[in-house]
Amino acid sequence: MLKTYKNGKDLRDACRRQEHTGPTPGLATGYIQANLAVLPADWAYDFLLFAQRNPKPCPVLEVGEKGSPFTAVLADRADIRTDIPRYRIYEDGQLQDELTDISDLWRDDVVWFLLGCSFTFEQALLSASLDVRHITEGVNVPMYKTNIMCQSAGRFQNVPMVVSMRPFGPEDAIRAVELTRDYPAVHGSPVHLGDPGAIGINDISRPDWGDSVTIREGELPVFWGCGVTPQMAALVAKPPLMITHAPGHMFVGDKKDYDYKI
Amino acid sequence: MLKTYKNGKDLRDACRRQEHTGPTPGLATGYIQANLAVLPADWAYDFLLFAQRNPKPCPVLEVGEKGSPFTAVLADRADIRTDIPRYRIYEDGQLQDELTDISDLWRDDVVWFLLGCSFTFEQALLSASLDVRHITEGVNVPMYKTNIMCQSAGRFQNVPMVVSMRPFGPEDAIRAVELTRDYPAVHGSPVHLGDPGAIGINDISRPDWGDSVTIREGELPVFWGCGVTPQMAALVAKPPLMITHAPGHMFVGDKKDYDYKI
Repeated sequence: MLKTYKNGKDLRDACRRQEHTGPTPGLATGYIQANLAVLPADWAYDFLLFAQRNPKPCPVLEVGEKGSPFTAVLADRADIRTDIPRYRIYEDGQLQDELTDISDLWRDDVVWFLLGCSFTFEQALLSASLDVRHITEGVNVPMYKTNIMCQSAGRFQNVPMVVSMRPFGPEDAIRAVELTRDYPAVHGSPVHLGDPGAIGINDISRPDWGDSVTIREGELPVFWGCGVTPQMAALVAKPPLMITHAPGHMFVGDKKDYDYKI
Repeated sequence: MLKTYKNGKDLRDACRRQEHTGPTPGLATGYIQANLAVLPADWAYDFLLFAQRNPKPCPVLEVGEKGSPFTAVLADRADIRTDIPRYRIYEDGQLQDELTDISDLWRDDVVWFLLGCSFTFEQALLSASLDVRHITEGVNVPMYKTNIMCQSAGRFQNVPMVVSMRPFGPEDAIRAVELTRDYPAVHGSPVHLGDPGAIGINDISRPDWGDSVTIREGELPVFWGCGVTPQMAALVAKPPLMITHAPGHMFVGDKKDYDYKI
């Protein structure tokens, strides 16, 4: 049985003590979860500009001070180096390592970014009694590389948008658009619905990341900008160092999902 | 009588030919108007981060490529150097000049920012038949320096938020909150309503910028984050060069106000 936590801080403390090193979904219900990207400071402007130009896949929630690992907005003084259960280390765009603490890698010339995650708006879909298929089926959300090109920014050029997909009947698809438009800070409304081929997805049953889910007769696949996009951007541009969370092993804040509803 | 234009491009062309050098409100109804800030490239990250941390007063709509004066998002290839009716030139935080063309000042190491303007959401208020007092009274919106401190970013430290004020009866104040929350890209919902003293405004009849407007018995002053804030930030931080539009002499785009409704 999954051990749950009464809030984000308790979960972060367990990560800091290395008691929790696994995935985070469902462990502190209602608390915001976020994607991490740590980059050298001389890449920070290009990355922030890329995010400004591509707000649906790259919703920036907080940016750290150069060299400081401490948060101030999403959580009160969380430590980026220790409070996430699992990290991935990329050098020149290549995955080099997976760690549960990055204190030894920390440098004075890095900047961290926390970006919105679809877990936040999924809570709103579930509250409205929508069947969020990958949750119902107990798997990871399917994600796809598309032919929708992101707006370029500095060294982040020719980056394809990554999308996540949830299938719904037409009525629930409309409801899902209505509900997620109220969360512009965490991906907002969908970027596409219907024909996967129109955005360059040739086989909907074979996602590029995550797991395939059942699409029933009469259902439309609905596609949202996905937080894997900024990682994709960084990997395409090959910065000398990039540190991210490991998939599903998110930063969990003190803020609630509901705080990001407009 | 005011000469009006059928769209943003016609108005920009008139500016480029120096035929129009006056204020822009009401000249191309429905087309988005934006605040300008041009800064040296080595100030761009701090400015973009300041905006990310203070989205209500500083809603960034588009950021240029270093050295390029051409827009791509708000308008198709507008020229930032010539297509705004009037500019203000600041050096080390001091106003030095007011010009109608900044081609001679353009450099390869500057970056421009276009920021959302309350003219956009005022259109929504007017469409809902609200009495927007400064428009009814034919004056500029009253603006105030407050004791609400912006989140700092790099060299932009200790910047007080500037707000604009529109008075409404309680029912219309609620309606105004509802309507403007749908425009998160252009200031969004108010930052305060009621007692001006609570945000450090000692005399509501004496705005720091713009004009005083009538507040009737039973009305509440309602305060929104104001696009003068990023200029204030830049003036506090004293960059060697900053170019802005002259007050009321805005950039007018090809996009419509409605495009920024979520």
